[in-house]
Amino acid sequence: MFDPIEKLKEFIRHPSVSADPAFKEGMKGAQNFVADLLSSIGFDVEVVKTDLHPIILATRGANPSWPHVIIYGHYDVQPADPINLWKTPAFEPEIRGKRLYGRGSADNKGPLMTHIAAVARVLERRPDLPLRITFMIEGEEEMGSPSFPKFLEKYSDRLKEADFVFLSDTGIPAPDQIVITCGLRGLVLCDVVVTGPKSDLHSGLHGGVLRNPIQAVTELCASLHLPDGRVAIKGFYDDVMLVEEWEREQIRKLGTDQEKYREFLGIPAFYTPPGFTPFEATRVLPTLEFNGIGGGYQGEGTKTVIPSKAFVKISCRLVANQKPEKIRELLYAAIRERMPKDVTYEIIDQHAGTPYVVVPPDRANTPKDQSPVLARAFRAADKSIAEVFGKAPLYLREGGSVPIIADIKRVTGLDSVMMGLFLPEDNLHAPNESFNLDVMKRGMEASEKILEAVAQG
Amino acid sequence: MFDPIEKLKEFIRHPSVSADPAFKEGMKGAQNFVADLLSSIGFDVEVVKTDLHPIILATRGANPSWPHVIIYGHYDVQPADPINLWKTPAFEPEIRGKRLYGRGSADNKGPLMTHIAAVARVLERRPDLPLRITFMIEGEEEMGSPSFPKFLEKYSDRLKEADFVFLSDTGIPAPDQIVITCGLRGLVLCDVVVTGPKSDLHSGLHGGVLRNPIQAVTELCASLHLPDGRVAIKGFYDDVMLVEEWEREQIRKLGTDQEKYREFLGIPAFYTPPGFTPFEATRVLPTLEFNGIGGGYQGEGTKTVIPSKAFVKISCRLVANQKPEKIRELLYAAIRERMPKDVTYEIIDQHAGTPYVVVPPDRANTPKDQSPVLARAFRAADKSIAEVFGKAPLYLREGGSVPIIADIKRVTGLDSVMMGLFLPEDNLHAPNESFNLDVMKRGMEASEKILEAVAQG
Repeated sequence: MFDPIEKLKEFIRHPSVSADPAFKEGMKGAQNFVADLLSSIGFDVEVVKTDLHPIILATRGANPSWPHVIIYGHYDVQPADPINLWKTPAFEPEIRGKRLYGRGSADNKGPLMTHIAAVARVLERRPDLPLRITFMIEGEEEMGSPSFPKFLEKYSDRLKEADFVFLSDTGIPAPDQIVITCGLRGLVLCDVVVTGPKSDLHSGLHGGVLRNPIQAVTELCASLHLPDGRVAIKGFYDDVMLVEEWEREQIRKLGTDQEKYREFLGIPAFYTPPGFTPFEATRVLPTLEFNGIGGGYQGEGTKTVIPSKAFVKISCRLVANQKPEKIRELLYAAIRERMPKDVTYEIIDQHAGTPYVVVPPDRANTPKDQSPVLARAFRAADKSIAEVFGKAPLYLREGGSVPIIADIKRVTGLDSVMMGLFLPEDNLHAPNESFNLDVMKRGMEASEKILEAVAQG
Repeated sequence: MFDPIEKLKEFIRHPSVSADPAFKEGMKGAQNFVADLLSSIGFDVEVVKTDLHPIILATRGANPSWPHVIIYGHYDVQPADPINLWKTPAFEPEIRGKRLYGRGSADNKGPLMTHIAAVARVLERRPDLPLRITFMIEGEEEMGSPSFPKFLEKYSDRLKEADFVFLSDTGIPAPDQIVITCGLRGLVLCDVVVTGPKSDLHSGLHGGVLRNPIQAVTELCASLHLPDGRVAIKGFYDDVMLVEEWEREQIRKLGTDQEKYREFLGIPAFYTPPGFTPFEATRVLPTLEFNGIGGGYQGEGTKTVIPSKAFVKISCRLVANQKPEKIRELLYAAIRERMPKDVTYEIIDQHAGTPYVVVPPDRANTPKDQSPVLARAFRAADKSIAEVFGKAPLYLREGGSVPIIADIKRVTGLDSVMMGLFLPEDNLHAPNESFNLDVMKRGMEASEKILEAVAQG
């Protein structure tokens, strides 16, 4: 059995920055490192070519009657810039105290190594473990996984044979409080560009006879929320999954302080739709936000112009059961209906993403047809995490969007068990990224127990 | 008597671009040219120093019982850029057809020369004309006349002795249709900067708990107009001068075509407050416009951010009898009252300008205490212009703002007779600027008759 920490250091030494072509060699090195390591613990390794960085697909266990878990991870990392802010070089891993420093230590090389080591350990102990395991490790996660959907479509027949996906690429609030992420918000984005006069006009000579496109844009924007903060589009909330009491209870258990959160945001007061705490709202409610607005003169001082054009960038975060196509339709219909006839406008589609939710077993709203292996995995995770970390995990939906999880569900039908392992202080995407080696050690134990329990049946 | 066209050419050859220090010599040349010319026709010339370009003050006629006219003009010009678009060099005047080409030919060297030549001619004929004349010719008009208010304050005692100001620095629609501009709009400008969270936020992690500053700005903007186009601020229209039928009649006589104007603007439909045509609205109604708006991401594609800040630049055009101080107060009170408590904001004062109006004699709303000399000047202008151009002038308020006219009124109490002389095709502020020499010739005749009639008493 290899030394997981030494192996993790070796992994980090490959500077696998996927977004920067200058790191081509580092990408290749990290990819070979993972392939060789998985091969060395008995996996059949396949390197699947994509338009950019290959995906590693590695399997063990051929008996189709065995439960089958896919372990997801990624071997690419964020750029290390600004490099002068690192205490020790980003790609020369160093242990200080309980932590291993280096780019990718927490996102995602450490958590991925945690699972590889757990698999190695359990297979060393029980070479005949009745469990099919597939590692699915991509190299474009930090670029938004552009090749992943195509890969999923191509390999869907094979991937569909599995029972669930297991991964650690989400966060936890404290070293002893594991969170299992049960939902992610989806997205619908568009730009609205409004044209008033065909060119910019002198506001003295022409002001008072036409609708300024800034007026049209702001009137549209102002029509999209009710005073209480809810989105003012008919049907917007129709499909939103109801929030069960168990879920509110989980959020309360997180124990986050509202006043501290308000201070962190730096706002005079919250503006949260009625009936929800701020911590609930970001997790279980959809939103409509303005990500950018522009038009006319933006410099210092004044320029008395009526601009020809103004624009706004709108995004909706969607929650469980909402369909991006339907929300897009409702949003566009509202824009069309509310735009005055004295301007022209264009709606420009931007990308969209489906929201994701998985309800753990034994809850009020657990689907009746939930896969028994998935249910077993959740129960095993709950028990193992409680034993190893001393506290039961929390089951929380998150406000952000991780498109690959919804893509996996959409293409293969598989749900994911997302066992968070990184801490706020791990500095993901920032200088001096590190990974807590205590969390790693316990994560390995938990992962080992979970895999064994899933195999047990 | 000098040749006005040859003298105008000489004037244009001095490249007097006030805004560009590289043209220092041209400014000095134009200033000396004007001073020498006025001296040569018998004026006492004083060159008044300012912080930048001097003002020429030249007087004739010492008898305090004579009527007293101040003739305003400016010897500076706009930059000639883009110079490659000029058919002949900007500062080498050339006559082609009826037109004299060159930078400043129409704005304002030609019209100013028109008045100087008229004065020279009438004084040559009648050296004992019982009329005091003061030329007041500045060199910073194309820069916004920064030194002018201070000059007015300093010389107010002398200037107050005059009866009215006579100038030609406004436009006409056709060579035979002179317009006497009777009003200019004022201005109040400010920026509103709204701050939501203390830094930009991830719209997934935090969206749904706080008011986006773009939402706050757009809600404010959308609250500032009624659906019919009027400004939605209590008291905004309280002091607006009522429009008399004679004024609507003058605007109708202008004969401008609404459909052509709509096509020129390039808008699907007008959006004009009820009870006014577009041509009336720009002249007699105040406005509230948004000259610029900004916040968040403005590039291509998407960035799912909740910005920390958003801003809007607001300007109000004011009409006769409205006070900038009062409108500023009403606007700020509306902003303060409507801004939600969950964001912070700052209102940044920008400049302001008083609206200007002068009602010609013999109208329903002519002030009872109108100066008899001013009334005589208007009547003389009406008669002389009708004789020389074959059509009576139109009396129109304009939508733009010319702060110096309101400043003269504010500091000295003097009204202005603004006899427009330049045409749309004169290309002011653009390449191939030119002045119609027929208009110049007739303008001289009219000016001569007006001055003589004012002197006559």
